[in-house]
Amino acid sequence: MGENVDSEIIEHHVEEEMEKKDARSHAASSSSFLENFSAPSESDREAHSGTQSSHRLLAYSDALISIIATVMILPVAHTKMENNEELRESVQLLLTTKIAVYLMTFLIVTVAWAAHIRLFQVIVRIDDCLALLNLACMMLITFLPYTFSLMAAFPENILGLLLFCGCVMVMGVIQSVIVLYAFSRPFLLNEQIQISENQNFYKHHILKVIMRVPLMCFFASIFSFIFFQLSYVLLAVVIFLPYISQSLKWCRSKAIGQVPESPDSTLFYTYLPNEPLSKDRVEAFSDGVYAIVATLLILDICEDNVPDPIVVQKQFGGSLIAALQVYGPEYLAYFGSFATVGLLWFVHHSLFLHVTKTTRFMGLLNTFSLAFVGGLPLAYQLTHEFPADSRNELEAIQISCVIIFFAGIFQLTIWVVALYNERETLHPYVRYGGCEHIFMLAKLSLYPCVALGTFFLTCILSKFSAAIFHLMEITVPFAFIVLRLLVRVGRASLRLIFCPDRPDQRGVVVEEDDETRVPFSALVT
Amino acid sequence: MGENVDSEIIEHHVEEEMEKKDARSHAASSSSFLENFSAPSESDREAHSGTQSSHRLLAYSDALISIIATVMILPVAHTKMENNEELRESVQLLLTTKIAVYLMTFLIVTVAWAAHIRLFQVIVRIDDCLALLNLACMMLITFLPYTFSLMAAFPENILGLLLFCGCVMVMGVIQSVIVLYAFSRPFLLNEQIQISENQNFYKHHILKVIMRVPLMCFFASIFSFIFFQLSYVLLAVVIFLPYISQSLKWCRSKAIGQVPESPDSTLFYTYLPNEPLSKDRVEAFSDGVYAIVATLLILDICEDNVPDPIVVQKQFGGSLIAALQVYGPEYLAYFGSFATVGLLWFVHHSLFLHVTKTTRFMGLLNTFSLAFVGGLPLAYQLTHEFPADSRNELEAIQISCVIIFFAGIFQLTIWVVALYNERETLHPYVRYGGCEHIFMLAKLSLYPCVALGTFFLTCILSKFSAAIFHLMEITVPFAFIVLRLLVRVGRASLRLIFCPDRPDQRGVVVEEDDETRVPFSALVT
Repeated sequence: MGENVDSEIIEHHVEEEMEKKDARSHAASSSSFLENFSAPSESDREAHSGTQSSHRLLAYSDALISIIATVMILPVAHTKMENNEELRESVQLLLTTKIAVYLMTFLIVTVAWAAHIRLFQVIVRIDDCLALLNLACMMLITFLPYTFSLMAAFPENILGLLLFCGCVMVMGVIQSVIVLYAFSRPFLLNEQIQISENQNFYKHHILKVIMRVPLMCFFASIFSFIFFQLSYVLLAVVIFLPYISQSLKWCRSKAIGQVPESPDSTLFYTYLPNEPLSKDRVEAFSDGVYAIVATLLILDICEDNVPDPIVVQKQFGGSLIAALQVYGPEYLAYFGSFATVGLLWFVHHSLFLHVTKTTRFMGLLNTFSLAFVGGLPLAYQLTHEFPADSRNELEAIQISCVIIFFAGIFQLTIWVVALYNERETLHPYVRYGGCEHIFMLAKLSLYPCVALGTFFLTCILSKFSAAIFHLMEITVPFAFIVLRLLVRVGRASLRLIFCPDRPDQRGVVVEEDDETRVPFSALVT
Repeated sequence: MGENVDSEIIEHHVEEEMEKKDARSHAASSSSFLENFSAPSESDREAHSGTQSSHRLLAYSDALISIIATVMILPVAHTKMENNEELRESVQLLLTTKIAVYLMTFLIVTVAWAAHIRLFQVIVRIDDCLALLNLACMMLITFLPYTFSLMAAFPENILGLLLFCGCVMVMGVIQSVIVLYAFSRPFLLNEQIQISENQNFYKHHILKVIMRVPLMCFFASIFSFIFFQLSYVLLAVVIFLPYISQSLKWCRSKAIGQVPESPDSTLFYTYLPNEPLSKDRVEAFSDGVYAIVATLLILDICEDNVPDPIVVQKQFGGSLIAALQVYGPEYLAYFGSFATVGLLWFVHHSLFLHVTKTTRFMGLLNTFSLAFVGGLPLAYQLTHEFPADSRNELEAIQISCVIIFFAGIFQLTIWVVALYNERETLHPYVRYGGCEHIFMLAKLSLYPCVALGTFFLTCILSKFSAAIFHLMEITVPFAFIVLRLLVRVGRASLRLIFCPDRPDQRGVVVEEDDETRVPFSALVT
């Protein structure tokens, strides 16, 4: 047996070597959705010393941007709320400033992220210089949330506005430099542009698109000296322009039928309604948001909830357990929020396994879903901050339910939108009517249904609201484990109720499975 | 031209569809280094409904683990330091407790991460149940830093120790369940085990390895009731056991030559010295650490450095700019730390482009490098917290230099170790002596050299220490941009000094380039 294992190991090493080479060229070719055109071979790669696949640069950028997008929930979560104060008032206060800042930051950062995706769909290979320019760009993006905080704290003062516009303009300049640099070294571009005869046309078009937003910011900063309210309007246009133009286009196409698109608008560097976002990057960005949100509460717990030895000695007679019991609600909040975020990630993960292409609209819905996910730690913290059976506690629990509901319902909407264009966006085996389709629907609707149910139950049985909420926290993870079983039982019982005359129940199930190309062998987990 | 573009777009869509399918199977095959054995085809994939590539699950786990590993630097960074107090004393205080907690957390979390890698080198496909079990496992890992905080704050109290041991034991149980579950569904395992006749032997061996650490924790928790100092020793053994056993093996192999390894120790699930870590996961984990460290300071700035409108009105006469000038040093600290972390990421990125396989020892060095990177925000914050020209400021600057130096020198060591086994670990074109080799060396040694130089300069010219440090911060990014040029000039001048008699300088350079297969065409960035 010794030699047997040894030879296995040797074979294993050889095959591993080969696999490494494979993985390398795969990583290069799958990093961006257009890169497959170039299909860079190893020799091609070495032909241009110093050029690299952009895969890891983009992964790092996604990680940075997702952290920055969710950062502004921290000031909201750390707002101290007095117990004697009414929650309604403090929530009003929060809603008007900090939550607005959080949402604005989230939206503007995702706009910047979408621009970053577009840019690196054109530039598919990088070298050292581009990597450094990209890092400079990232640094400016990380500074945007702070300018929003300033704007929110001092709406009458134009300094925040000027800082924001300054950052955006410098970013525009850096991105233009990146584009000019890449076009001066065409082997960095995607093949479609590399082989095109109109390289100059592409270059000017891309530069025009890139400079649109910085130019608007330039005007906004000039107007701010004259009439600063107008500047805010301009900024709002900057943020919502992609979405507005997209919905206008959608309405027009519905009203007067499919318009034959002009060559200018079919260029993939414009805001096309169905222009696909890179699926890899949507996943990477979502993973980053889910990861940072899941750990936000443990950051606070590690920092704030270690009792002072002197306090323990004096107040609790040296009993550490007694001292830690004070923090009980915080631990519960942590586990509750981690489990909920983790399971929402799980649903997102299952959803994107079936998706082949992410349209811009799906990306927008994903952004909204993530924005609500970012609010979860806040909601859970609120839930455990008030004395039991108080009116505040009830409202905090209901707010949590609302946030969970919206985070889940937007995921469900992604699925519905994907079904609407299922030929383009979904794998064949999950298209409408299949068994996997029903199972996916059950997964997606579990959290919205449970949140809605909990919300109404707490309205009726307000005395037991905390108990109901904690029961939900505990049961939902188990519900996910037995979901396949539940769906199967549900289908069988539905069939039993509506078609009780069919003779061979089992046979029908198996037949239908064959039809949908999904055998039931591993169905019961 | 319109139709031309249109047809291009259609072609593009078709090819994109195909590429998506490709990318999917690539993602599946490149997710784990052993998975290429199974090379799952699309039909194979559909044969087992509900199984998925583990790629995204692992990426999410890496993101979570990297955030948790660096979390404990926050309590260190937020320690308030009085200006009239001597830095030396407060640093002593920090060193003894909080920094120790940070380093211990970092090491134990990376040990847990390495175990996670090993586990998912065996299990290469997942289903919903495994995904949920893995999330439960992640939740326990995120709780480990808190138990360390408790241990550090109350070393005499065994509660922290018991909590830690409890977490580890529950994780052991969950991982055993994962293994048992995967072995009951062999299509989830890697091909090597799938085709093996000794599946039971593998299963028992893996379970034995997994339960080793929880068992030691079990004994530690029992001993803690009798003689708790012994428990700490046991825990230290748990953390350092992999490294100790590895260095012992290395020493033995040096002392008595290459020992023919027994079949038991050649199983890839043991702590082999050259057992490769999955390179993808090392990169993902490092990216996570660099991303969270780069943004740690902006978290603080967004939360703490927005002045209160009332304060601005009263103290600064309504001038926001005057109020913000107080925070000047914080902004500088942020930009300095972001740039340094970003550039260290850049060096890391360049380094791992050339690496084909990560040995366990390289992983260890990478961990040490990352642990120092995690300390950077703290160092930069210290630098700007003290009044100019004070003794405290000088020492803070010198500590920053030391941290940068070690973060860089460990990266350099990874490179040296990789060169030591260059046949196994490096791409052919960067092996010893090539031009890329020299350039890589220059990149890697830039930060250690600059940090060392700044350190000694501040020793001599202590009056200008802050100016020297800020000059370094500003010049290093530009140094990276012109590095290729510098290396070329350096080589040419070296050749001019040592071999001035060679006639055709340029010819020799070109010849050597051909030899190393790296044309100079894109050399001057």
